[in-house]
Amino acid sequence: MNLFLDTVRGSAGRQTPIWIMRQAGRYLPEYRKIKERATFLEMTHDPALAAEITLQPLRRFPLDAAIIFSDIMTPLEALGIPVDFTPGPVIREPLRSRAAIEALALRDEVAPFVGEALRIVRAALTGEVALIGFAGAPLTLAAYLVEGGGSKEYEHFRRFLRSEPAAMHLLLEKLTDLTIRYLQMQIASGAQAVQLFDSWAGLHDLRTYREYGLPYNARILAALADAGAARIYFALGAAHLLEAVAELPADAVGIDWRTDLAAARAALPGKALQGNLDPALLFADHSAIAAEARRILDQGNGGAHVFNLGHGIWPATPIDAVAHLVETVHAYRRP
Amino acid sequence: MNLFLDTVRGSAGRQTPIWIMRQAGRYLPEYRKIKERATFLEMTHDPALAAEITLQPLRRFPLDAAIIFSDIMTPLEALGIPVDFTPGPVIREPLRSRAAIEALALRDEVAPFVGEALRIVRAALTGEVALIGFAGAPLTLAAYLVEGGGSKEYEHFRRFLRSEPAAMHLLLEKLTDLTIRYLQMQIASGAQAVQLFDSWAGLHDLRTYREYGLPYNARILAALADAGAARIYFALGAAHLLEAVAELPADAVGIDWRTDLAAARAALPGKALQGNLDPALLFADHSAIAAEARRILDQGNGGAHVFNLGHGIWPATPIDAVAHLVETVHAYRRP
Repeated sequence: MNLFLDTVRGSAGRQTPIWIMRQAGRYLPEYRKIKERATFLEMTHDPALAAEITLQPLRRFPLDAAIIFSDIMTPLEALGIPVDFTPGPVIREPLRSRAAIEALALRDEVAPFVGEALRIVRAALTGEVALIGFAGAPLTLAAYLVEGGGSKEYEHFRRFLRSEPAAMHLLLEKLTDLTIRYLQMQIASGAQAVQLFDSWAGLHDLRTYREYGLPYNARILAALADAGAARIYFALGAAHLLEAVAELPADAVGIDWRTDLAAARAALPGKALQGNLDPALLFADHSAIAAEARRILDQGNGGAHVFNLGHGIWPATPIDAVAHLVETVHAYRRP
Repeated sequence: MNLFLDTVRGSAGRQTPIWIMRQAGRYLPEYRKIKERATFLEMTHDPALAAEITLQPLRRFPLDAAIIFSDIMTPLEALGIPVDFTPGPVIREPLRSRAAIEALALRDEVAPFVGEALRIVRAALTGEVALIGFAGAPLTLAAYLVEGGGSKEYEHFRRFLRSEPAAMHLLLEKLTDLTIRYLQMQIASGAQAVQLFDSWAGLHDLRTYREYGLPYNARILAALADAGAARIYFALGAAHLLEAVAELPADAVGIDWRTDLAAARAALPGKALQGNLDPALLFADHSAIAAEARRILDQGNGGAHVFNLGHGIWPATPIDAVAHLVETVHAYRRP
């Protein structure tokens, strides 16, 4: 009996669990203190450090789940792709040819240090707090790999997809294989739920998503069906993709702050929903935060609902706003 | 009788007009040549140069409309806000206090050089080619003004909106007054249609858009009802906002490449639609471009449809792809 896991799997009781995307991160002074002496790569690669950062928010707030501290780019080094963080991800040699994609091959075990961090965290958590692993969706990883880093328009990536569709599919195949292996390892190491982050799915129209996104996401999620972990899919800016997302073999779907939970509920029958307070709302006064949280909680009724922000928490977020939010969600009782 | 203007106003004949967002710009060698000797500010402020750039694409392609070469930030200098372009807009002193917003006042005539450029272009065009003026929507201008420039998340802006809602409304009021004056001047100077660009509307959820976007956009568009120009509203990433957009007093709505035209048609009864080929498709081979253009043309049936890209054309776009697109659209006959 775990409130978060039960809810992700579709059971809708009177209480709503809460965790917060990027809850282990820069808005916490204790995280910033670690960051003074370690680079981002060191923090994600050192299991003890990653586990410590994962646990930090749990010591402050009675959250219902921990999410392992890592990055969606982390498994790529097993494909021989070094990623720098400045602080956003930078790919030294962007993949812009079929030959470069053909040359990609699994060289190492996929991020075993993440597995080790998961084991440390799992041992430190009580059974009431669930442990979430995660990975990036292939189409989102491909966006970074072809573009060379973050971008507003992802012009290189979108051009490559249009001009070299077969090479793009080959890249997505390889990323899918990598991701399945990575998430299976995370589950074997203690992750009780996994979230597939498709941060850039929303760049694409529905037809393009159906060709380049959906089948790969579906293959990953299906491969985990019997692995024993709950499966969450989260795409950003994806209101126009919900009819395809509904077809994914996921237990729950994360909804960004822009999409109305009631609209998502109607579009995603049978899925638990996760979300979706605007991270900017945590800068409003406490009464406005509570009012908006309750509105979202009300909207979440009619099915299983895990409370979360609609996107990662921002570095400047006041700690007391987070505490107030968690309290508000936990005090709420569904009708 | 003008194909573009008739279509924007809702008449659906057998032929589909086409123009292209950012058609006067960096993908044209003749534009890049001017850019070698003039800064972006010089190009937008010199009426003869702006008119020349506006006309450049018309000499290459039989487009159905010209859009004045300018920038959505251009009218802000009349409020005493200098904008640099590096190349994106940079606000030297971002507006982050109520006092800074209260101090904003109209100091000059709003961009009279844009009016002069419109007069030059209007005189140079035949009656078959319509002339479009434009402005930025208040909520989008406010995003740049508070953030200080372009951004992925617009954290400063979204925080300010949540923490200082009254000051945000005051800013939006002032930007609305400025925009009405600016667009009235453009229409008086020869613009036969105006497009309100709400590039960052999609950052917001529906409730926030209904409070901070919709009323100001509606006031601008309503103020132009009797000015004699057709009114187009274009928001990016706004699939989740269409039910509010449907309420705007606009003749036509621009649809970005992500939103299915058929879905937009259903959500926007009585509006002409404009769009929505993915700019990345212009890097595919010619047969793929034609196939996708025809698919969009087919989807545009069932109401008035102006063909366009779903976002501004990219600098690296091959010229012959544009020519092929325009030809394909003009060869199409609606059933």
